[in-house]
Amino acid sequence: MPKRVDPDERRARIADAAIESIAADGLDGTKLARISRRAGVTTGALTHYFEDKDAVLLAALEAVCERLMAKAAEVDARPAIEQLADALPVDEQSAKEWRVWIAFWGRAAFVPALARVHRDYYRRIEAALAAKIGGENAADIAAAIMAAVDGIGSRATLEPELWPPARQRALLTLMLKPLLEGKAIHDPTEFDTSIA
Amino acid sequence: MPKRVDPDERRARIADAAIESIAADGLDGTKLARISRRAGVTTGALTHYFEDKDAVLLAALEAVCERLMAKAAEVDARPAIEQLADALPVDEQSAKEWRVWIAFWGRAAFVPALARVHRDYYRRIEAALAAKIGGENAADIAAAIMAAVDGIGSRATLEPELWPPARQRALLTLMLKPLLEGKAIHDPTEFDTSIA
Repeated sequence: MPKRVDPDERRARIADAAIESIAADGLDGTKLARISRRAGVTTGALTHYFEDKDAVLLAALEAVCERLMAKAAEVDARPAIEQLADALPVDEQSAKEWRVWIAFWGRAAFVPALARVHRDYYRRIEAALAAKIGGENAADIAAAIMAAVDGIGSRATLEPELWPPARQRALLTLMLKPLLEGKAIHDPTEFDTSIA
Repeated sequence: MPKRVDPDERRARIADAAIESIAADGLDGTKLARISRRAGVTTGALTHYFEDKDAVLLAALEAVCERLMAKAAEVDARPAIEQLADALPVDEQSAKEWRVWIAFWGRAAFVPALARVHRDYYRRIEAALAAKIGGENAADIAAAIMAAVDGIGSRATLEPELWPPARQRALLTLMLKPLLEGKAIHDPTEFDTSIA
């Protein structure tokens, strides 16, 4: 009896290998053969699921987004800014994901399919944030939060030695405190990350 | 008598051609042959000045930085946030430069020479901003300004149709007004962009 292959499991494994590879070598240095080796599948199996490097980048990115969305949906009692800081490159795993994220930016401006994923992801997460913030300028504040996280995160990704987690958090607090002060943060259980 | 070549002029012309090429096709799509054609020089002349694509990217980036620094040094009487907004992708030229900038981010995390340029540029511009802002937390506010500009600018570069100039400026104002309020903005003639 041939070994049964779970396509979802295999796709997930390849996406994880792609994240490791892009984070380690950049998009230019990432070769399909190396990803398949890292994932423990044949190159033939890999090309069955992904036709080119952009398709692999897309899968890596979707895996990163899913994790971020899951993190955002977690219910806990910490202050809101502390939760937002979790999206920054403050540990090994998130630093890796930020490297993939930045590699993606460099391609997305030129590949419409990637640009679409970017836009959809930001729309989802921004809507979820706005719902959590509440009030009439919630959408603007949510956009400002995204910009602050992106601005600090990209900087910290390119200058990790100058941007330890404590400095990233302090700058995020400086930027967001005046915007969030006086804002009623809704019950975090309402934090809805589904696609509208 | 052979035609005399001004190396600085030629380097500048190649750097401009590289900006056009990277902005149009991305870093992956940029070929040295196409840059040399666009610059009106032979491929041999181009490879005399630039050994590989990263060297061209570096030159393109330095040209972009020089222009931004020159813009930052301009003395005028507009409100400070309006001046900062000039660094965003709010017109055709700056949109082009942002595409180069973002392509650069995707490479800089993996190429130490590019990372160094990034760090030096940010240090220069941040020190100049801090001197202009003045006061004891000027360095933090300067870093926050850079993060706000980067966060909005990267977003607008990837979603230009959703981020017209007016929206970029409004978000920048929302983010920076509370930070700059009550801050004494020094005489703009003091805005020093030289390397410390």
